[in-house]
Amino acid sequence: MNFERGVFVAVHTGAGTHADSSCQNHKSICKRACQQAMALLLGKGSALEAVTAAVAAMENDECTNTGRGSNLTMHGTVECDASVMCGSSLSFGAVGALSGVANPVTVARRLVEEKKLGPLPFGRIRPSILVGKGAQEYCVEHGIGVNDNLITDSAYKTFLRYSKKCFKKPSALLVNKKRKFSEIEKKDSEENQKCENPRDDQVQDTVGAVCIDSEGNMAAAASSGGIWLKHAGRLGPAAVYGAGCWAQNETSESKPGIAAVTSGCGEQLMQTLLAKTCCDSIRSTDNLTQALTGTFKSNFMESEFLAGDKDKFAGALLLRKIQINGVREIEVLWIHSTASMCFGYMSGKDKTPTVRMSRLDERCCPGQSFVIEGHTVLTSGQPAATET
Amino acid sequence: MNFERGVFVAVHTGAGTHADSSCQNHKSICKRACQQAMALLLGKGSALEAVTAAVAAMENDECTNTGRGSNLTMHGTVECDASVMCGSSLSFGAVGALSGVANPVTVARRLVEEKKLGPLPFGRIRPSILVGKGAQEYCVEHGIGVNDNLITDSAYKTFLRYSKKCFKKPSALLVNKKRKFSEIEKKDSEENQKCENPRDDQVQDTVGAVCIDSEGNMAAAASSGGIWLKHAGRLGPAAVYGAGCWAQNETSESKPGIAAVTSGCGEQLMQTLLAKTCCDSIRSTDNLTQALTGTFKSNFMESEFLAGDKDKFAGALLLRKIQINGVREIEVLWIHSTASMCFGYMSGKDKTPTVRMSRLDERCCPGQSFVIEGHTVLTSGQPAATET
Repeated sequence: MNFERGVFVAVHTGAGTHADSSCQNHKSICKRACQQAMALLLGKGSALEAVTAAVAAMENDECTNTGRGSNLTMHGTVECDASVMCGSSLSFGAVGALSGVANPVTVARRLVEEKKLGPLPFGRIRPSILVGKGAQEYCVEHGIGVNDNLITDSAYKTFLRYSKKCFKKPSALLVNKKRKFSEIEKKDSEENQKCENPRDDQVQDTVGAVCIDSEGNMAAAASSGGIWLKHAGRLGPAAVYGAGCWAQNETSESKPGIAAVTSGCGEQLMQTLLAKTCCDSIRSTDNLTQALTGTFKSNFMESEFLAGDKDKFAGALLLRKIQINGVREIEVLWIHSTASMCFGYMSGKDKTPTVRMSRLDERCCPGQSFVIEGHTVLTSGQPAATET
Repeated sequence: MNFERGVFVAVHTGAGTHADSSCQNHKSICKRACQQAMALLLGKGSALEAVTAAVAAMENDECTNTGRGSNLTMHGTVECDASVMCGSSLSFGAVGALSGVANPVTVARRLVEEKKLGPLPFGRIRPSILVGKGAQEYCVEHGIGVNDNLITDSAYKTFLRYSKKCFKKPSALLVNKKRKFSEIEKKDSEENQKCENPRDDQVQDTVGAVCIDSEGNMAAAASSGGIWLKHAGRLGPAAVYGAGCWAQNETSESKPGIAAVTSGCGEQLMQTLLAKTCCDSIRSTDNLTQALTGTFKSNFMESEFLAGDKDKFAGALLLRKIQINGVREIEVLWIHSTASMCFGYMSGKDKTPTVRMSRLDERCCPGQSFVIEGHTVLTSGQPAATET
């Protein structure tokens, strides 16, 4: 088997409610992210490099909710969360509530890479998670710019519209006093009454990527601007260990390599540690879709941790890799209880990525039903069972 | 059975290496923390109130590594992490890298309490974790002071001694230029060469408390100033879901109530999600010490996530509560791989708390061996097996 062809990437731009009009755009973003990661993987790049490149590509697109184009906080600022997990070293690195940095995922990756250098002088342990101003300082120490303008007109427009409704005092707007948004404000005032809930027209959430490199190493990465009008300093699942991303290399035939990234309602992903929970369920099973369906149902949709929530919104994109007699078998799965989820995937032998906007059956109620689908790649290519 | 007597509190001031000289002091802190929590519990206070009061009492003591007296960051500042978990609602609240607040645990508790109020306008979810400046702003919004001076002479002395050795540029000291530490600096210069590693004379770590109230609800709380000379913005286990504290009420006879708090090497506690992992292991077992020994061995000491670490340092304090035919059975357990761990516990029928400095057998190597011990309270009072 040609190991360069055993490389794999899967990415998603978020689970939510995608309007038909944004469908093509999201698919294009997934396509580009897959291609950028694949170019690295085919050039013997590591899974860690590839997931970082894929997520950075999505951060760079203004249509995703991370990096430039992120949802704004209650102060009209951008604060991103991002994390990376290496399936080989099992190291985890994350940044939270980080402002002014266009590619937070690259900072998370650096935290993971630095772990390889061992402890600091006097036995001091290197940090895994850095937040806020301290995370910014770390960027400055490592030559990463912290003054990027990440606020788009579109994000500011949404901010203006809803901050007026949510906050009695509009003083939070003063944070952006230096920016000249008067035109946007004027134009937006007419549309102000149309939409009662930003969820109706703003669907983006955490983006993520999972990869397998030519050595068989796996990695996962996630990045998010968090929920709109969030409290400053709010940490979301993309910075929480076990919630936003997970990766573990294969250690034996009975313990295949696994990787997952999640998206959806942040507090629900955190309370159920969804990325880890999904990975644990599919690691040692013969029936992936059955195992993932079971755990998603019992540990998310019916979880005792979410008993107070009427609706449960999540999406997960997973990879499992096993090597038997020199044949690498890769399975890719997606599951979501949101109305839609946009993703793409590509193996080393594919000329172009497969991109999909998966939608919940129209008869099903988002937050209360879910759809699961999966494909086995390189060995059979047959789609697995689909359940709704 | 008198339910007011079924209340219980257990606290610890950290797992580490306690000098004989600090032993009495740590025991006294545990005693006071237990008594403050018990006064609330006997007055029908909730488990959530009681764990918060116990941890706040420890934060207020300068000898613990949290609140005033915390280890200083690389900038000579105090940044605390704290979290609270409610076993009834299963809500988790945490603050991270929070400066200037004497009792970070009270902020974490408020995040948990506010969850009961339901979502914010327009379906916005209330935050679970707030960090840095945003967390400070939340304090200001809720009338909590953010200008407390938390730097003690002792902490500053340690900072001076090691920052000179660790950082080539002493400019980080400038952060504290307004404080008059010249005398301390002069006095300290003579001792400067004595100790090569702060670990030798500075043993504090995360503090924590677990409680059961008269209604049978359980709660857990943790608080920490983090590792000495940590990078600004570094998030430790006391702010990480599943790592520093965990609590779940009893839901059936086969699913008793459980609560745990941990302490030790922060990155190791996080990577193994130790509080949750320990709780999961003892929830549905007939042999607590055997189950906890097994999971501590396989999921911490021999964990694949810590394969790169020669030594593994952790301590955990756990409660399990079950109600059978009107009899409330409470089991308290402690386990640690550090040289020592100081803790205390008290039931509603006790006149004074039991306080202990548990030490690893002198023949055992800290970081490579561990000790476990447990007591069943109210039904038999017999100590369970002890293993090393």
